[in-house]
Amino acid sequence: MNIGLDVMGGDYAPTTTIKGAIMASLEFPKDSKLVLFGDEDKIKEILKQENADTSKFEIVATTQVIGMGEHPVKTFTQKKDSSITVGFKYLATGKIDGFASAGNTGAMLVGAMHSVQQISGIIRPCITSPMPTINGGQSILLDVGINPDCKPDVLYQYAILGSLYAEHVYNIKNPRVALLNIGEEEEKGNLLTSATHKLMKDSKDFNFVGNIEGNQIFSGKVADVIVTDGFTGNVVLKEAEAFYTLIKKRELNDDYFDRFNPEIYGGTPILGVNSTVIIGHGASNENAIKNMVLHTLHVAEVKLSEKIKEALKND
Amino acid sequence: MNIGLDVMGGDYAPTTTIKGAIMASLEFPKDSKLVLFGDEDKIKEILKQENADTSKFEIVATTQVIGMGEHPVKTFTQKKDSSITVGFKYLATGKIDGFASAGNTGAMLVGAMHSVQQISGIIRPCITSPMPTINGGQSILLDVGINPDCKPDVLYQYAILGSLYAEHVYNIKNPRVALLNIGEEEEKGNLLTSATHKLMKDSKDFNFVGNIEGNQIFSGKVADVIVTDGFTGNVVLKEAEAFYTLIKKRELNDDYFDRFNPEIYGGTPILGVNSTVIIGHGASNENAIKNMVLHTLHVAEVKLSEKIKEALKND
Repeated sequence: MNIGLDVMGGDYAPTTTIKGAIMASLEFPKDSKLVLFGDEDKIKEILKQENADTSKFEIVATTQVIGMGEHPVKTFTQKKDSSITVGFKYLATGKIDGFASAGNTGAMLVGAMHSVQQISGIIRPCITSPMPTINGGQSILLDVGINPDCKPDVLYQYAILGSLYAEHVYNIKNPRVALLNIGEEEEKGNLLTSATHKLMKDSKDFNFVGNIEGNQIFSGKVADVIVTDGFTGNVVLKEAEAFYTLIKKRELNDDYFDRFNPEIYGGTPILGVNSTVIIGHGASNENAIKNMVLHTLHVAEVKLSEKIKEALKND
Repeated sequence: MNIGLDVMGGDYAPTTTIKGAIMASLEFPKDSKLVLFGDEDKIKEILKQENADTSKFEIVATTQVIGMGEHPVKTFTQKKDSSITVGFKYLATGKIDGFASAGNTGAMLVGAMHSVQQISGIIRPCITSPMPTINGGQSILLDVGINPDCKPDVLYQYAILGSLYAEHVYNIKNPRVALLNIGEEEEKGNLLTSATHKLMKDSKDFNFVGNIEGNQIFSGKVADVIVTDGFTGNVVLKEAEAFYTLIKKRELNDDYFDRFNPEIYGGTPILGVNSTVIIGHGASNENAIKNMVLHTLHVAEVKLSEKIKEALKND
């Protein structure tokens, strides 16, 4: 496997990104390689400084960077030699098997849609976040921000995408899928969730367990996959981030709550596109970059996008 | 002021409810009285047992109870001698100035709409929750569950209702009102929030400060009033309750997080109806009942519903 990394992306790029890549490379299998897109001099300097095994790396020198605040569509096409744009060229032509960045999320989405494109039959790709559960596992929440307005058929498809992700990447057999709602009963909710519940309840495409309310998100008792629209999902995710900030401000130390730290979070695949594309948190530290790169390798190895294609064919 | 309490409502009613009422009565002004609706024998027994000053109380004997799981509309009209139904009769005829219950929320809503009715000009009444902020205050979140599907004009009116509540009950001058959204920029969000932002941005009816994201809800830095639809608001509130449960499960003790305890939370007015109606948490303990009764007195004393009527006239 060849895994591509945008070393110019992220709040602490490129030094932190390159160091994180080196950490990840130590856990890479022999036949796998890390392809670094970015400032060649800087990459060489840090690889040398850290005594990295250069046989694990390939450097693709790029001269431009898409900044965090830049307009995704414009810059992706205009900055032809940006690390993200070149990375996606490599991904689309099969020179790499997965591509990760902690940089401009919008540009990564645009890149994925323009280059590898969405899988035929997918209505809307989405992104996810693992919610740490008190029993030591996690629930996969999706969508967490791409599609703020969803229709029931989109949420139905998220249930399939989330199930496949939970099964193949998190090794959860027959994952329990719940719909985030404001009541346990079928008829509860807003127009979207009550219509979605009707669609989901007799589904044979996934293991639907019913509604889940906000107070059960972290219990692990109800669901492995929590489906919601990108607006609600983003609010839920950011409220969890707020909570971690509060815990730190109050100087409380706890192993469980440490798992809420967005900086160690390894990124999310864009589910529903024709390859492995992983988006990391802008504030990623070295460890987060390492986790993001290893997550990219993992998602590419299990061929998640192929699994999604097969599932849609049978649907 | 005469404040009515449904002593039959709540998970630990009537014993806990009556004890909470006695605690509240100790802080009642001389000219105020607590009117208890429910099982007369039980009320008398506990008032005696607790050596309560009976001059502070009036007992209205009722023989029926609307259970937590019962259908609100049906039972409210059928159970004519239920504590909630009789309480609303007293409220509608001016025999009490406010009415509170930790019982069936749906029945309380139905009762409010049937008896005192919504204020002319109100599109949809709503309910609120204080979100404890790290700087020692709170932000008022609304709606937290009555209206899962809202239109922009409804959210606009929530901003007015929330402002008046924050100003008159929480003594916050010129309260900052923010729209819960998934980005800081004006154009961000779903169809509802982006249209609502346009409506709110030049408002002279309240002090609009822009969007607030999920990670700022508890900071206190952005807003005193946070406006959202009842679906998102309910998920946010229940996620906050989940955090409190997690904190307790991890055996962490902290003054700030103790403020997330839903059991001490004093209830919310139904904003937009023609009198003071307060709904408490089902799991209310004695202290929560006390807080709910005192909150009812406070909201009645500041004549919040009159202030809302005036504001709508000038609108």
